[in-house]
Amino acid sequence: MTKVTLACGNGGVENSELIQKIFYKHFKNDTLDKNEDSAVIHDGSLVFSTDSFTVSPLFFSGGNIGKLAVCGTCNDIAMMGAEPLYMSCAVIIEEGFDMAQLDRIVSTMSDELAKNGAKVVCGDTKVVPKGAVDKIFINTSAVGKIVQQNISSGNITSDDVILINRDIGCHGATIFVAREGMDMSSENLKSDCASLWPQVKALIDSGINITAMRDATRGGVSASLNEWAAQSAVGIVVDESSIPIREEVKGVCELLGFEATGLANEGTFILAINKADEKRAIEVLRKFDDNCYATRIAHVVDENIGRVVLQSSYGTKRYLEMPSGELLPRIC
Amino acid sequence: MTKVTLACGNGGVENSELIQKIFYKHFKNDTLDKNEDSAVIHDGSLVFSTDSFTVSPLFFSGGNIGKLAVCGTCNDIAMMGAEPLYMSCAVIIEEGFDMAQLDRIVSTMSDELAKNGAKVVCGDTKVVPKGAVDKIFINTSAVGKIVQQNISSGNITSDDVILINRDIGCHGATIFVAREGMDMSSENLKSDCASLWPQVKALIDSGINITAMRDATRGGVSASLNEWAAQSAVGIVVDESSIPIREEVKGVCELLGFEATGLANEGTFILAINKADEKRAIEVLRKFDDNCYATRIAHVVDENIGRVVLQSSYGTKRYLEMPSGELLPRIC
Repeated sequence: MTKVTLACGNGGVENSELIQKIFYKHFKNDTLDKNEDSAVIHDGSLVFSTDSFTVSPLFFSGGNIGKLAVCGTCNDIAMMGAEPLYMSCAVIIEEGFDMAQLDRIVSTMSDELAKNGAKVVCGDTKVVPKGAVDKIFINTSAVGKIVQQNISSGNITSDDVILINRDIGCHGATIFVAREGMDMSSENLKSDCASLWPQVKALIDSGINITAMRDATRGGVSASLNEWAAQSAVGIVVDESSIPIREEVKGVCELLGFEATGLANEGTFILAINKADEKRAIEVLRKFDDNCYATRIAHVVDENIGRVVLQSSYGTKRYLEMPSGELLPRIC
Repeated sequence: MTKVTLACGNGGVENSELIQKIFYKHFKNDTLDKNEDSAVIHDGSLVFSTDSFTVSPLFFSGGNIGKLAVCGTCNDIAMMGAEPLYMSCAVIIEEGFDMAQLDRIVSTMSDELAKNGAKVVCGDTKVVPKGAVDKIFINTSAVGKIVQQNISSGNITSDDVILINRDIGCHGATIFVAREGMDMSSENLKSDCASLWPQVKALIDSGINITAMRDATRGGVSASLNEWAAQSAVGIVVDESSIPIREEVKGVCELLGFEATGLANEGTFILAINKADEKRAIEVLRKFDDNCYATRIAHVVDENIGRVVLQSSYGTKRYLEMPSGELLPRIC
């Protein structure tokens, strides 16, 4: 491969390959190799994470690029059992961009930061000539303080079950609909974009011992489960009928020819916890808006190591593969 | 102003206005208001900084976008008397970008990180369709550990003198020449792009008590001095003839119609220290490559508060203003 393709940014197979062959090769170090949502730094007391946002369109049902930029990075912090504290905000703006839109985006960021209890402490503003960037791209990085130690995608065992906090695929489906100009405006289809720290904090405050968490962004639930199976060297068996998917998302998937499990989410996470805590964790999660479908979707086994098996309600089994190909570019 | 203009990203007057009117307005908090190169976080023990890099061309005499991305952010950490430790690396790549060039850029980043003793601990890779970004943009954010406390642009008094580590304007002049395809290839004109932590560490190790430091990037020495005069509420008197500028840079400035003091630098910093330490600090600085012109360029007074006065060798005086207008877009 001599050129970077769109598939290299999909959150799936090609994305992993690019990261391994270029970035890990040169940056190789113990912290980076952990392959978690955030890096654990400073003697294990803090986490650090970064994300760039290139979503198109900038404004969509349920959010905008600013909300996404705060949620995306704070969620990566939260997934490590850490409280988001300090954020950086670096914007690259195309010459001629509308000042009122910029104000609206930054205002949304501020509102979303408040939900995390975090603040922007440093920033950077670049303006580039027309055509050098499409409207505006935002990078946010954040530092958070670990509240519950030892949460890691490498710790999952067959004593764990895997829960999900809500129904899947809303962000991916919403962006697709917005981009294609389809008139599917419905209160039932909007991005799930949301800050997850309040939910994580509630789980920790309830005394639930979390094994691992991951927000199922690019590559969707498929990518997250496959990463977990590989990182923890376990098999994951998903009960297909238990995965909550709303009708509107199913409809978009049929149009797209995609699986909902491969669609990006921005406020949906999977949670591995000891079987004994299942009921209590679901109760905690369901108290939050949009989480009425929180449920167990999978169990963990000591066979089919590194693989995710999808079990249908008819009893048939197939592998749920890591997504590959172009998927939807500029989803986040 | 209803549209964002190129001038809004110049590191000068319009840039400050945009930051104040949009970003500070919404993000307002005590840490952000300090307006330093990096934010002091975690009870004063750490600093945090971010920068996005959009330079064109990607490769230039003395460096490339990768070297710039590591130096730029690590230097912001170093300017606070802090040791760069952890870096994030987020790239936005245009579909079709050459894989060998990407490898070269990331390899350069790795080499430059080693000079800082820092490591990349987290990252993000986005690929966007052709035309959505011009080739590649890189964001780096970093966390560093404060080694010398209380370095601040607000602490400068008339007991201080202001030194510079080397001759100015090389980065800005080099990028201009590269962009215009001018044949001025000369060993004497290349970007000053360099990691400053080793120089800062040497100053601290020599027991020099640093009042303030700033790397004179976008907006050049003019912007940095004007920011200091305002933040410390002092007057700064610059001895014009003492500012080291090489002939090649003077030549480019005549072509451009720019002042060398407004040109961007990427490995050039100003240093405010007590008068008593002047000689010793210059000795320390001159031991480093490219620093043979390290010298005092200004003294601090209690009049002309908030202003920078340029004193010529003929005894005439004029204000050195904060740069404004478009300057050179995509310089870093």
